Amino acid sequence: MSAARAKVQKPDPAAPLDLRSDTVTQPTPEMRRAMAEAEVGDDVLDRDPTMAALEERVAGLLGASAALWTPSGSMGNLIALMSHLQRGDAFLAPTGAHVLDAELGTAAWLAGGMPRPLEHDAGPGRVSPAAVRRAASGDAPYYALNTKLLCVENTHNAAGGTVTRPEDHARVAAAAKGAGLAVHLDGARLWHAAVKLGVPPGALTVGTDTVQVCLSKGLGAPVGSLVAGSVEFVQQARRLRKMLGGGVRQGGVLAAAGLVALDRIDLLAEDHRRATTLAAGLRERGWRVQEPETNIVLVAVADLPGTLARFRDSGVLASSMSGKVRLMTHADLTDASITAALDRIGPLTQDSPVRRAVRGAS
Amino acid sequence: MSAARAKVQKPDPAAPLDLRSDTVTQPTPEMRRAMAEAEVGDDVLDRDPTMAALEERVAGLLGASAALWTPSGSMGNLIALMSHLQRGDAFLAPTGAHVLDAELGTAAWLAGGMPRPLEHDAGPGRVSPAAVRRAASGDAPYYALNTKLLCVENTHNAAGGTVTRPEDHARVAAAAKGAGLAVHLDGARLWHAAVKLGVPPGALTVGTDTVQVCLSKGLGAPVGSLVAGSVEFVQQARRLRKMLGGGVRQGGVLAAAGLVALDRIDLLAEDHRRATTLAAGLRERGWRVQEPETNIVLVAVADLPGTLARFRDSGVLASSMSGKVRLMTHADLTDASITAALDRIGPLTQDSPVRRAVRGAS
Amino acid sequence: MSAARAKVQKPDPAAPLDLRSDTVTQPTPEMRRAMAEAEVGDDVLDRDPTMAALEERVAGLLGASAALWTPSGSMGNLIALMSHLQRGDAFLAPTGAHVLDAELGTAAWLAGGMPRPLEHDAGPGRVSPAAVRRAASGDAPYYALNTKLLCVENTHNAAGGTVTRPEDHARVAAAAKGAGLAVHLDGARLWHAAVKLGVPPGALTVGTDTVQVCLSKGLGAPVGSLVAGSVEFVQQARRLRKMLGGGVRQGGVLAAAGLVALDRIDLLAEDHRRATTLAAGLRERGWRVQEPETNIVLVAVADLPGTLARFRDSGVLASSMSGKVRLMTHADLTDASITAALDRIGPLTQDSPVRRAVRGAS
Amino acid sequence: MSAARAKVQKPDPAAPLDLRSDTVTQPTPEMRRAMAEAEVGDDVLDRDPTMAALEERVAGLLGASAALWTPSGSMGNLIALMSHLQRGDAFLAPTGAHVLDAELGTAAWLAGGMPRPLEHDAGPGRVSPAAVRRAASGDAPYYALNTKLLCVENTHNAAGGTVTRPEDHARVAAAAKGAGLAVHLDGARLWHAAVKLGVPPGALTVGTDTVQVCLSKGLGAPVGSLVAGSVEFVQQARRLRKMLGGGVRQGGVLAAAGLVALDRIDLLAEDHRRATTLAAGLRERGWRVQEPETNIVLVAVADLPGTLARFRDSGVLASSMSGKVRLMTHADLTDASITAALDRIGPLTQDSPVRRAVRGAS
Repeated sequence: MSAARAKVQKPDPAAPLDLRSDTVTQPTPEMRRAMAEAEVGDDVLDRDPTMAALEERVAGLLGASAALWTPSGSMGNLIALMSHLQRGDAFLAPTGAHVLDAELGTAAWLAGGMPRPLEHDAGPGRVSPAAVRRAASGDAPYYALNTKLLCVENTHNAAGGTVTRPEDHARVAAAAKGAGLAVHLDGARLWHAAVKLGVPPGALTVGTDTVQVCLSKGLGAPVGSLVAGSVEFVQQARRLRKMLGGGVRQGGVLAAAGLVALDRIDLLAEDHRRATTLAAGLRERGWRVQEPETNIVLVAVADLPGTLARFRDSGVLASSMSGKVRLMTHADLTDASITAALDRIGPLTQDSPVRRAVRGAS
Repeated sequence: MSAARAKVQKPDPAAPLDLRSDTVTQPTPEMRRAMAEAEVGDDVLDRDPTMAALEERVAGLLGASAALWTPSGSMGNLIALMSHLQRGDAFLAPTGAHVLDAELGTAAWLAGGMPRPLEHDAGPGRVSPAAVRRAASGDAPYYALNTKLLCVENTHNAAGGTVTRPEDHARVAAAAKGAGLAVHLDGARLWHAAVKLGVPPGALTVGTDTVQVCLSKGLGAPVGSLVAGSVEFVQQARRLRKMLGGGVRQGGVLAAAGLVALDRIDLLAEDHRRATTLAAGLRERGWRVQEPETNIVLVAVADLPGTLARFRDSGVLASSMSGKVRLMTHADLTDASITAALDRIGPLTQDSPVRRAVRGAS
Repeated sequence: MSAARAKVQKPDPAAPLDLRSDTVTQPTPEMRRAMAEAEVGDDVLDRDPTMAALEERVAGLLGASAALWTPSGSMGNLIALMSHLQRGDAFLAPTGAHVLDAELGTAAWLAGGMPRPLEHDAGPGRVSPAAVRRAASGDAPYYALNTKLLCVENTHNAAGGTVTRPEDHARVAAAAKGAGLAVHLDGARLWHAAVKLGVPPGALTVGTDTVQVCLSKGLGAPVGSLVAGSVEFVQQARRLRKMLGGGVRQGGVLAAAGLVALDRIDLLAEDHRRATTLAAGLRERGWRVQEPETNIVLVAVADLPGTLARFRDSGVLASSMSGKVRLMTHADLTDASITAALDRIGPLTQDSPVRRAVRGAS
Repeated sequence: MSAARAKVQKPDPAAPLDLRSDTVTQPTPEMRRAMAEAEVGDDVLDRDPTMAALEERVAGLLGASAALWTPSGSMGNLIALMSHLQRGDAFLAPTGAHVLDAELGTAAWLAGGMPRPLEHDAGPGRVSPAAVRRAASGDAPYYALNTKLLCVENTHNAAGGTVTRPEDHARVAAAAKGAGLAVHLDGARLWHAAVKLGVPPGALTVGTDTVQVCLSKGLGAPVGSLVAGSVEFVQQARRLRKMLGGGVRQGGVLAAAGLVALDRIDLLAEDHRRATTLAAGLRERGWRVQEPETNIVLVAVADLPGTLARFRDSGVLASSMSGKVRLMTHADLTDASITAALDRIGPLTQDSPVRRAVRGAS
């Protein structure tokens, strides 16, 4: 195993295994060293040189002209939506999208867009070109909403970390463009999709106007996302970031860790492999598990709060997503962590004590 | 026929029959007389006495403590949503609801709510108590949207003027209440539902916090809607109305017409009867028509813009709704109007010339 | 006196004289007749013909290409500001301007502009070209507010109905234009300024992009204002009006009264004359009165709430403005009303009983 | 000199001296070491332990119950204003306040407050209790703005880093409270005021509801501010921070540097001493300099852009503030830097070449 994976969460019998999210990872020693040695400047007044280097590298990876660091993926998405939408506009996004459900409504009340959720008619987390064309408004009277934007998410978190392939993405983006829509890609886990598909990230951004990617989900950087697009977009985004309070001074200390994180993209394959192992192990033990496409394992259970509590009591932290238990693999886990997790939660019964009691009584 | 229906749109062979909406009606002579004689005051500084009388009467009809006049139903809905929602909140509404699709996104960007559309799982325009309970969030982390409001619409315009019965409404409202939600009823055509069901309007507002009703849709008043609720709500609504620029001075001239309009509620049965006649006639002539529940007739066609254009060329104005042709009956139509409309559009072929040409070629 | 002034508020000894605002006026018989006979249409779907006639006539009076009816002056101002401003912009306005103090902050939170109030450095209610130039931002860094708009008010209500002359207005507007600003004129009482100055209203709109005028302040129409500008502006304004809930159906009933009101502009000279008489009478009786320029009389008092209460008890309703008592003359008053008002309030002592008691004790 | 000041900006003859802002400082070696060794956690899901330690320490320093880290002071102020204000509210702030002029209008369009700027009637950057009382609205009609908040700034940047003393602050805050207002203190440079006055920072927060302080202005941390108040406020603030995209994951790496920065508060006295030296030197050389109270030196010049350009060409970077040249001292400067700055800019003529040419010609 790579030295970069040396410092990992030990499956200490006393400590819980944290599978709630891939955001819980600790910065690596290399990231910490990079932070300590980063060359920095005042990125509000001028440019911080390490920030600039990170932004340039990410823009290159995404096939974009420019990119801008933001403190969070939520702010990256919000800035993109603020640039695409205005009052009286609508936007399309697949149901369960992060911009719909997990950003406190800012797409609506702050970016100004009325959402029009799209069913996943082309598989979990995926929409078809036809659905986009159908939903995009044509000539409308002056008092009608104008649909202006399609927001896609790859991988799609709430659907279970599902992947959209380059050719499918391209056709959906083309359908949006053909209907006069801008396209934003929420790529918080775009790296995962690229690794899974064996393509460069830029192959998954074709036809987009803006893309958000994250350095702390899976890649292990402590803080930071980027939003990429045209030079004009990034100029505007810089102003929007200042509005929202996301302009920082010597941000290079964080960007330095981000540059290290970008070297770790290929290691996501390990997370995917471990998710598959975890899913198989749970299924063997009788759990109803959706086959993972990347690093997210969704488990359908009858009693969600009860199951989460019993997992926690058994030493495995999980979260809820789309009415299911969500388990995420990440850089601080090893093969031994997966084995330990299966040992801890696999044997648990899948119903709550209350439900068992009720059933027993019948 | 009632004298109040005396002044109607003559089916003049040269003039188009306007079935686009029930908002196109002319004020009756009685309304015009009432406007000319209305007692008025400055309703921003004090209360306009005729406004006050109208508000009191509508509150009584709806079983509410108080009501407030607004220049439009959109403003009435918006004021209600502004009072129920704040940034970071979500609200439920059946797909196609007016607040989702036809109010320029104000529910989102101005009232601050992220919409969560509900499928019509209990019939067209109707949602089930179970769906409401499922969608209402329970205990959520600090960074999650809080679902705070259910917005229902009776009759549901986009579904085809469909009616929700008192017992079904009450159970849905109770489910919302049980889940901690406020309930707003968009009753722009609540009068139609009440007449259809043969119940007083107040039977359809059980369990609601706020209700919007309209005086110009079907009832024929030139301008005005009302939003009703508790005394505290109406006090706040009065301030919100001023914010939005909806405070007017001697509004009693409009309220006077509104009081006359309220005498016309029972006459809506005529509109419903004519809609049924129109639907039956079209179906006989081979059109695919949804059976109307009130005054809205939806016709499924292959080529929507083409069909609307050919209707117009034949002397019948229609609009589009939910991807179909919408025809609405209203107070300015007679039985003869319906006969004339059927004569004009019934015989038309249901495909566009282009489509016929294509088919002919095959 | 003109027959149009026939129906006026009688100085009935038992009834209070209402000098709170010129919005309290009753519609004239001619207005009522016009409302009853108005030709109307659905102004949301198409155009209401009487609305269209009113809008065309007002555009012509103001020297604008087009105009749009709104339910209130607040909505007219708001629509103009929404069209000129976006998030991150600032606007200039003289202190005390209606858009700053009397529209519930919508210029800020809804139109998105940070206000930069200007001192009245060129006389009450008036700003100098130099002050505008000084306040307009030049080249600014990306994180600075952009000043985009000057909003002037003629007559300026809070300063006491003060008038800006055409040549002064033109120079201020030119200074704004030279600094790259748009210019909006809040002309809620522009008619008063024009009559006072003996110029056509269009002489006071030179160099403006948008103008709001009111039909119910002084002119006596029951409801309605208009906002005027370019054809493109009015197209956008129509959409903004729909957003705010200000789109109405058969609004021609109100527009008809508005057309009558426009015939009454010259009669405002009577209101001005009576304000001068009232001010002189009060001054003779020892009150500290600002010399009125139009129909607003401001009286400086030591105890504002106390004075308003004692006026009311004596049969004269007044309001407060800029820390003073405001008395407004309007179409429903006669010369006899002024005499009666002076009889009622002139003899009052100018201090509150409490203050007198305190002074007496010292 | 303290070892903590060891790594400073050398007055390299070739390098410009950067006096634009005290935000340009480099993190010290100790800060970098702390970042590399910080104990961290996921501060969105749980709490990051170093973040928690920083927040607890700052709350203690400010005499507040709790505090919350934000990526910038702008976000800290914005969160506080969002918690105090809603649509239809107004707030008071001294003219030139950062929340008025330097935060892209978010106080208005995002927090929802209409600003009411207060003159500096109690000295530069300072307002009197009487002015606050006068501006706070009393009983107002339903359609009037409600003044809800006083926002003060200590030191006041735009006035020249001016200091408000504890007793003056307390009386102003008490006046605000007495008038029913909440009080927010923008304390981006509160540390400077405390050091200057020789009081603990908590002596300057008496009577406030919320306080914002900064770690990167003067104290040298690379990124971060905090907003403090009651436990309830901080709970709400945490949600507001997530809305704005300011929630970060392993933020402890930044908090660790912030904890080091807090050890440097007393060193600000050096910055103040150097500002005094710089001001005296410039005055001796004929410049019109406002006597600095802390670390900000304002110089009145006839030609601001020209002077800034000539300073830059001579090797001194300055910024503009309130129409003057602003020079700020900070941790990366030494006594030798001040000498060098005076050598570089002191001898410059105070008029632009153009102005000199014009004068020469006369």
